[in-house]
Amino acid sequence: MLTIANRTFQSRLFTGTGKFASSIEMENALLASASELVTMALKRVDVNDERDDILSHLQHPHLHLLPNTSGVRTAKEAIFAAELAREALQTNWLKLEIHPDPKYLMPDPIETLKAAEALVKKGFVVLPYCHADPVLCKRLEEVGTAAVMPLAAPIGSNKGLEAAAFLEIIIEQSNVPVVVDAGIGAPSHAAQAMEMGADAVLVNTAIAVSENPTQMACAFKLAVEAGRLAYEAKLAPKQAVAQASSPLTDFLAELGD
Amino acid sequence: MLTIANRTFQSRLFTGTGKFASSIEMENALLASASELVTMALKRVDVNDERDDILSHLQHPHLHLLPNTSGVRTAKEAIFAAELAREALQTNWLKLEIHPDPKYLMPDPIETLKAAEALVKKGFVVLPYCHADPVLCKRLEEVGTAAVMPLAAPIGSNKGLEAAAFLEIIIEQSNVPVVVDAGIGAPSHAAQAMEMGADAVLVNTAIAVSENPTQMACAFKLAVEAGRLAYEAKLAPKQAVAQASSPLTDFLAELGD
Amino acid sequence: MLTIANRTFQSRLFTGTGKFASSIEMENALLASASELVTMALKRVDVNDERDDILSHLQHPHLHLLPNTSGVRTAKEAIFAAELAREALQTNWLKLEIHPDPKYLMPDPIETLKAAEALVKKGFVVLPYCHADPVLCKRLEEVGTAAVMPLAAPIGSNKGLEAAAFLEIIIEQSNVPVVVDAGIGAPSHAAQAMEMGADAVLVNTAIAVSENPTQMACAFKLAVEAGRLAYEAKLAPKQAVAQASSPLTDFLAELGD
Amino acid sequence: MLTIANRTFQSRLFTGTGKFASSIEMENALLASASELVTMALKRVDVNDERDDILSHLQHPHLHLLPNTSGVRTAKEAIFAAELAREALQTNWLKLEIHPDPKYLMPDPIETLKAAEALVKKGFVVLPYCHADPVLCKRLEEVGTAAVMPLAAPIGSNKGLEAAAFLEIIIEQSNVPVVVDAGIGAPSHAAQAMEMGADAVLVNTAIAVSENPTQMACAFKLAVEAGRLAYEAKLAPKQAVAQASSPLTDFLAELGD
Repeated sequence: MLTIANRTFQSRLFTGTGKFASSIEMENALLASASELVTMALKRVDVNDERDDILSHLQHPHLHLLPNTSGVRTAKEAIFAAELAREALQTNWLKLEIHPDPKYLMPDPIETLKAAEALVKKGFVVLPYCHADPVLCKRLEEVGTAAVMPLAAPIGSNKGLEAAAFLEIIIEQSNVPVVVDAGIGAPSHAAQAMEMGADAVLVNTAIAVSENPTQMACAFKLAVEAGRLAYEAKLAPKQAVAQASSPLTDFLAELGD
Repeated sequence: MLTIANRTFQSRLFTGTGKFASSIEMENALLASASELVTMALKRVDVNDERDDILSHLQHPHLHLLPNTSGVRTAKEAIFAAELAREALQTNWLKLEIHPDPKYLMPDPIETLKAAEALVKKGFVVLPYCHADPVLCKRLEEVGTAAVMPLAAPIGSNKGLEAAAFLEIIIEQSNVPVVVDAGIGAPSHAAQAMEMGADAVLVNTAIAVSENPTQMACAFKLAVEAGRLAYEAKLAPKQAVAQASSPLTDFLAELGD
Repeated sequence: MLTIANRTFQSRLFTGTGKFASSIEMENALLASASELVTMALKRVDVNDERDDILSHLQHPHLHLLPNTSGVRTAKEAIFAAELAREALQTNWLKLEIHPDPKYLMPDPIETLKAAEALVKKGFVVLPYCHADPVLCKRLEEVGTAAVMPLAAPIGSNKGLEAAAFLEIIIEQSNVPVVVDAGIGAPSHAAQAMEMGADAVLVNTAIAVSENPTQMACAFKLAVEAGRLAYEAKLAPKQAVAQASSPLTDFLAELGD
Repeated sequence: MLTIANRTFQSRLFTGTGKFASSIEMENALLASASELVTMALKRVDVNDERDDILSHLQHPHLHLLPNTSGVRTAKEAIFAAELAREALQTNWLKLEIHPDPKYLMPDPIETLKAAEALVKKGFVVLPYCHADPVLCKRLEEVGTAAVMPLAAPIGSNKGLEAAAFLEIIIEQSNVPVVVDAGIGAPSHAAQAMEMGADAVLVNTAIAVSENPTQMACAFKLAVEAGRLAYEAKLAPKQAVAQASSPLTDFLAELGD
């Protein structure tokens, strides 16, 4: 069972709310995924309207909201957005993401660390989205983040574990949960991250833009479970040579007599 | 649902009986896998003994035996072994494998095609293990094999879909089920094969040599289901650039007023 | 120095004549490549015309012609084409290629082996294009081919060493030169094949369709030399962990006193 | 021709001085590489001894020294080391590297940016070694570094372009030269980086620990030239399907008449 900041999770699949064709499609997919942590951009919610369309489809006891700061470009903006989110959504959990670049949405390491440190001091449970940079992840952990969320590949690229060589080091060194985020485009990618020892994965685009989001959510649910089971049962190492097998020739010769 | 030679399968995970520490461990793993087709080397069975240890652990109504010709080096040996297996195990299903090389156990395309043709004529349901060679797979189909079983990587290597570029062509062109065999070392590999559109995968070593074969079998079961669901729901394409996202700056400025 | 059938080559880069925008562009590129063996489709030549455009641009003492049977679909057609080529071009060297499939141009293992055996008996120096199938390569060698030419990836795909796992086995096992053919789309791919121990590579499309074929030919020439030198000097193995390095802290402290 | 901070380079291969078996072997390899920029750890030099063994083997007019701060763990230490190096070696060029972790020697993004900013203000020509983080590279450029040196893979790992997906973005976005550093273990890796559009590569371990460093240096020299030529001549795109080729059947039938 996964524990982050004293909250336990049965599911190691985190999801998001972006890019779905409709709120009802989103709701169905999130339920099929069995996910218990759902990230949501602050800007997508009308925080003053209790009947807000997205929020009303997220009212399930097992679904915890993880507001994110998507769209901010500096630590200062992130802190402001975080406080807004905390007040509006009544949660101190926060996915911190700061990406000044509108093309690839790559996270800013400097502003992210600065904001993380300030937000931890303000009592937030901070889960920062960051590059797959082992030293940065260590420094985020040191300022008190509840987890780290390194990217697998550029966000929305669906390319899978392009950063695998660095994720392995991050997983080895981390004392907080490692949630692989961004770029996971197929259940096989999610399974691979879990097999490597990631504590969880976050998947949004790959589910939302599928032709059948509910079925794809189910596929990711199974793949994450598969990867975790395999990690615990330990994978066999890769081998250069097959294990020798005795030829059947003698056996056949005997029988043929 | 998968159909091969008029037999239908709920499960798209085929398994094997080699390399398990004990027959009881094998039995537990096979049951956990929910596999309905289990391959078994003729030489590992005492066909004259009803109480044969391996066979007695395979007595489950949903488990169909797929005897294989592992160890033979020529078409002639394969045909002899096949007839022996048919008589002893009361099944005309056969996994045809002919590998003259004891180091990498790579299949022989010439002898395999020759044997396949002869065995089909003798009434066997032939599933040939072969290289991921699109033309060879086509020719095997043309002589009447019930499926083709191209390798993903050298057998026992656990390296995953090293032959992916060729498997894609085989899957596109085949009119018989494509079962990806050999080299699948992790649930993520199995999921990837299924996402590509393979009809089934065969996994043996990766389950049998795991520290916990039953749990690993369960992991492969889930991964195969995940991959198939994703294939049906269609994966999102890989993208070079993230979908543009509007900055939060204006929104924050407004709120901050 | 590379020797095939008693002919020695300074250059380990083999080239082709297809897809160039003009014969003069082809000639310039081939000269820049320093290649000594150039393959040419029989159908592209008017064998009765001494002033044939392509042939007239291949009249250089260091350039040996390697007619190929591209376009044939059976062993019978290949043998007929080979004899035609031998008579017309006055060489018994032959690149044997048999691909029944017009979409991916994948080689046929059965017909290729059959034709190879017959052509060797007829006195040809046979270099067969084939799938990266270790057993097939061994059987081609056994019937007397002068080399084997396994593919790196589907022809014209420019995808590089998709078949690397199998090429390694072929190179390890072969007693005749291994020429990696088809799919090499960049100098880095050619270098990689040579680093693995391939005896030569054949490159055509990647040079011919470049914006600057002469410069690209030069790039491949250098890359092949680089890869060969590296193979001979032996590459360092891949490492999981950096070699520990003493921190500079003490040194600085000392100086800072 | 490559220009960094008003100095032009014929060679796009940068080298290092670590891990060679002897100074004379180092000198021979560096000369064979034709490299014009050689990095050197401050701690490896006795800066007070004019006859220092390493320095005396680097006295060639075309060889520019690039002192590095390897071994420092903070910006403060880096600045102190940089000033020491400038005084001792009479150059304001500096390879800035700050890696607190002794196992993987991964660079620290926060300290590196802080030190880079300070060193630029102190008049240094700063070339920072950093993670393949597009935003960090942009910020380093903004504080005035003369180039950026993102890693290809963990240093000393020889694994090649593990960070390729991120290096592509860095190359696309950078206004200063991009020198791919760390992890390049084979000439094919160096060629691949250059084909992607890197301005230069830095190679040390792969040359120094080879069985024949001089020959390996030569191999890297050729590979870097090959990659650059190919980048300029433009590589052909990867293709899914071969260009259709007309069968030879009709042609043969005609001739066979």
